[in-house]
Amino acid sequence: MREDCHVCISEGFEALTRIRVSKAMYSIVASLNVINSDILLPNEIGLSDAAAKKLRVSENDTLYISHLEPIESLSHVRAKIYNQKLNYSAYKEIITDIVEGDYSNIHLSAFITACAGDRMDIDEISNLTKAMIASGKQLNWNKKIVVDKHCIGGLPGNRTTPLIVAIVAAYGLTMPKTSSRAITSPAGTADTMEVMTNVTLSSEEIKTVVEKEGGCFVWGGTAQLSPADDVLIKIEKALDIDSEGQLIASVLSKKAAAGSTHVVIDIPVGETAKVRSMEMAQKLKNHIETVGTAVGLHIKVVITDGTQPVGRGIGPSLEAFDILSVLKNEDNAPRDLKERVLLLAGELLELSGKVMKGKGAATAKQLLESGKAFEKFLAICRAQGRFTNPVLAPYKVEIKAKRSGTVQLINNRKIAKLAKLSGAPQSKSAGILLNVHLGDKVDQDQLLYTVFAESQGELHYALEYENNHNDILTLV
Amino acid sequence: MREDCHVCISEGFEALTRIRVSKAMYSIVASLNVINSDILLPNEIGLSDAAAKKLRVSENDTLYISHLEPIESLSHVRAKIYNQKLNYSAYKEIITDIVEGDYSNIHLSAFITACAGDRMDIDEISNLTKAMIASGKQLNWNKKIVVDKHCIGGLPGNRTTPLIVAIVAAYGLTMPKTSSRAITSPAGTADTMEVMTNVTLSSEEIKTVVEKEGGCFVWGGTAQLSPADDVLIKIEKALDIDSEGQLIASVLSKKAAAGSTHVVIDIPVGETAKVRSMEMAQKLKNHIETVGTAVGLHIKVVITDGTQPVGRGIGPSLEAFDILSVLKNEDNAPRDLKERVLLLAGELLELSGKVMKGKGAATAKQLLESGKAFEKFLAICRAQGRFTNPVLAPYKVEIKAKRSGTVQLINNRKIAKLAKLSGAPQSKSAGILLNVHLGDKVDQDQLLYTVFAESQGELHYALEYENNHNDILTLV
Repeated sequence: MREDCHVCISEGFEALTRIRVSKAMYSIVASLNVINSDILLPNEIGLSDAAAKKLRVSENDTLYISHLEPIESLSHVRAKIYNQKLNYSAYKEIITDIVEGDYSNIHLSAFITACAGDRMDIDEISNLTKAMIASGKQLNWNKKIVVDKHCIGGLPGNRTTPLIVAIVAAYGLTMPKTSSRAITSPAGTADTMEVMTNVTLSSEEIKTVVEKEGGCFVWGGTAQLSPADDVLIKIEKALDIDSEGQLIASVLSKKAAAGSTHVVIDIPVGETAKVRSMEMAQKLKNHIETVGTAVGLHIKVVITDGTQPVGRGIGPSLEAFDILSVLKNEDNAPRDLKERVLLLAGELLELSGKVMKGKGAATAKQLLESGKAFEKFLAICRAQGRFTNPVLAPYKVEIKAKRSGTVQLINNRKIAKLAKLSGAPQSKSAGILLNVHLGDKVDQDQLLYTVFAESQGELHYALEYENNHNDILTLV
Repeated sequence: MREDCHVCISEGFEALTRIRVSKAMYSIVASLNVINSDILLPNEIGLSDAAAKKLRVSENDTLYISHLEPIESLSHVRAKIYNQKLNYSAYKEIITDIVEGDYSNIHLSAFITACAGDRMDIDEISNLTKAMIASGKQLNWNKKIVVDKHCIGGLPGNRTTPLIVAIVAAYGLTMPKTSSRAITSPAGTADTMEVMTNVTLSSEEIKTVVEKEGGCFVWGGTAQLSPADDVLIKIEKALDIDSEGQLIASVLSKKAAAGSTHVVIDIPVGETAKVRSMEMAQKLKNHIETVGTAVGLHIKVVITDGTQPVGRGIGPSLEAFDILSVLKNEDNAPRDLKERVLLLAGELLELSGKVMKGKGAATAKQLLESGKAFEKFLAICRAQGRFTNPVLAPYKVEIKAKRSGTVQLINNRKIAKLAKLSGAPQSKSAGILLNVHLGDKVDQDQLLYTVFAESQGELHYALEYENNHNDILTLV
């Protein structure tokens, strides 16, 4: 709005005042930008596309602007900042206001930070999880057993989910998989699957796909499951943090809201993974199991090796190549990715009670190697609207060994950062293609990895980082 | 910028990407808004006034846009979120990047929250304070003794500072007072003094005033003293919090950067004041004294009664009336404000070593009652450019007792909120005029207080809050 318009003057609105904008039954909360130019007439208001859409306005409509009523739930956020324990109703009020869009980024960032770093106890995490489940839609599949799987990220290229869905659905179980996009990583499962199929489906469309094929790979955002999570994840991404309490609440609220009953959770452990020590992993495992039980889920937590990236690709398209290679049983398919998939799919088959203890992995292997999993994968993709093969990015630089030696360390965080700087996940085909793994012997000038980018600018940006950090991959 | 401009496409910029915008030697960090309308041509960029000013651009200049290099100091913020202790160099890097404008509101909010609620130990507070002192200009008065005074807020109407400056400068000491604007209160000292004089002075102008009159009452913001503080305060205001560590760093960095040597700090204690218990006040006193010594200041902390507002007015102009009334020795001048001023001015005179222990308050009283303090007050105002009498706001509503009784409680927080909703401090003459204090007996329909506002909208907004809260002032 214009600084000199009568509403700003009479109401004392100034830059960044939080205001309510309404039209008939629609209403949004917005941060006001004030201008002093004639782009707008006095008494005109400029809206972002998102705001205009939410308010269902068109040119020349009349809008009502008012002071924002005090956001009462912020008193709970302040209490949390001062280390107080919050109960269910406090979390419920906070999450409700967040879903309503009443919180500014400053408020959201404070809430996330106040809850990070072990500042929520197990009751609070359960309460936050329940509040997040209650904040959105909840799906019901009319099945006694609905399985799901989730990986506590931090491991570049660890794209087991689509493979597990294909195996488990091929077995005949129901696995309506909703995934998030990348939070702090170069690719989330939804980002990777979007390369090969449509992942933005409505609840109704998801239902149709799952009824037909037993499984799906979709982005959880549009399904309105735990909508608060999507808001919070954007801020966590900007902060590049992912705290234990929010993480558990995020994962389990999505699972419960999606109607899952039996869930396997994979925690990779490694010095540069998200979870850095076995001690932290055990604590997280206990917390997940306790909160899972509190919200009525059957949970099996599996702790796995997280010392290096999984497979070869890091970035949506490059990971898609790995997935297809395993599904097609290609000779050079990444063995580490396949082994991990068989372990986790096996655990999930056993947790469901349909496959005998100890027989899960072998059952999974048979489904994969017979080609039944690939068949199911393609069928699900087509049910979601398309199957598209991934492509390589147009720009690349090969990073070679400066001397001969043995690969001693691959820093998950730094290689993930490098992939992000190259443009992943926004640029689908950007990222890293690894040619070596821990323990590999390399000669001088041997290819270590390739950086792919969709623009020269992004490639340049990634290489600048690569030049300034000599510990992305360490040789001895 | 336009969504379809070649820079956005080739560089992968999208809504809220943090970018660097440069022209010759000037450069800023900005959050990008993308548009899809013809307000801008492709390859044009729209800047806020603040950005255009910082970049010294005019129409048709060529600007350079680039990806933002990673902000390395955010790794320290993340460490702090995860409860790690930060050293001086970490705080220095954070504060430097904040002053550079590299942090978004999300980052600033996370830093403030991560440092709030007892999460900084005394070494960290000292380190943050030193980093904040080093981040801006430091004044030097070429005097052995430079006195100052600060109140740890939370008490509406507690406007002792201008009175103490007048008394102490009348005595002959140097007191170059820089004050902040309101953080979470309806008025800061700078807001109140701005009603009567100019408070936005350059360092050079402040120097001239102080050399001539021995004292000043100016806003600390433009003096570039501890500039990080001004950035952080805006976020604290949005969050409505004021944490111990940030508070100490804010106060002491401003004092040290302003060249003060001897400082009296007033901590009002009361259930609804900022500091709620004697225990908290003692802890804060110890921390302030320790950090003060670490940064080379002589500090005396005085703990005072904070159970109710001080004086009658709450809001810039209404508090200005109280100040003038005390200076003029009017019969009905608020006694509580005067007593507090004599106590604190007395402590400051004694701390300076110029007045014998036990004689401070009496010396202050003589300076006030003789009219010398008023004379000095007017002289300083005029040296700052003007003396203007305060005026009352055009809109008001009188709040009367619903029944007879004794005033048992005045909720500082709620009466402050009421004053803020009425428009203070942006609307200078808005606020509350109290007619009663704790222990006063009132009859039914007797005037308790008056709400003043500069617009009907603000008055309405305050009254809505008043109607919904029956514990702003409690009768028994």
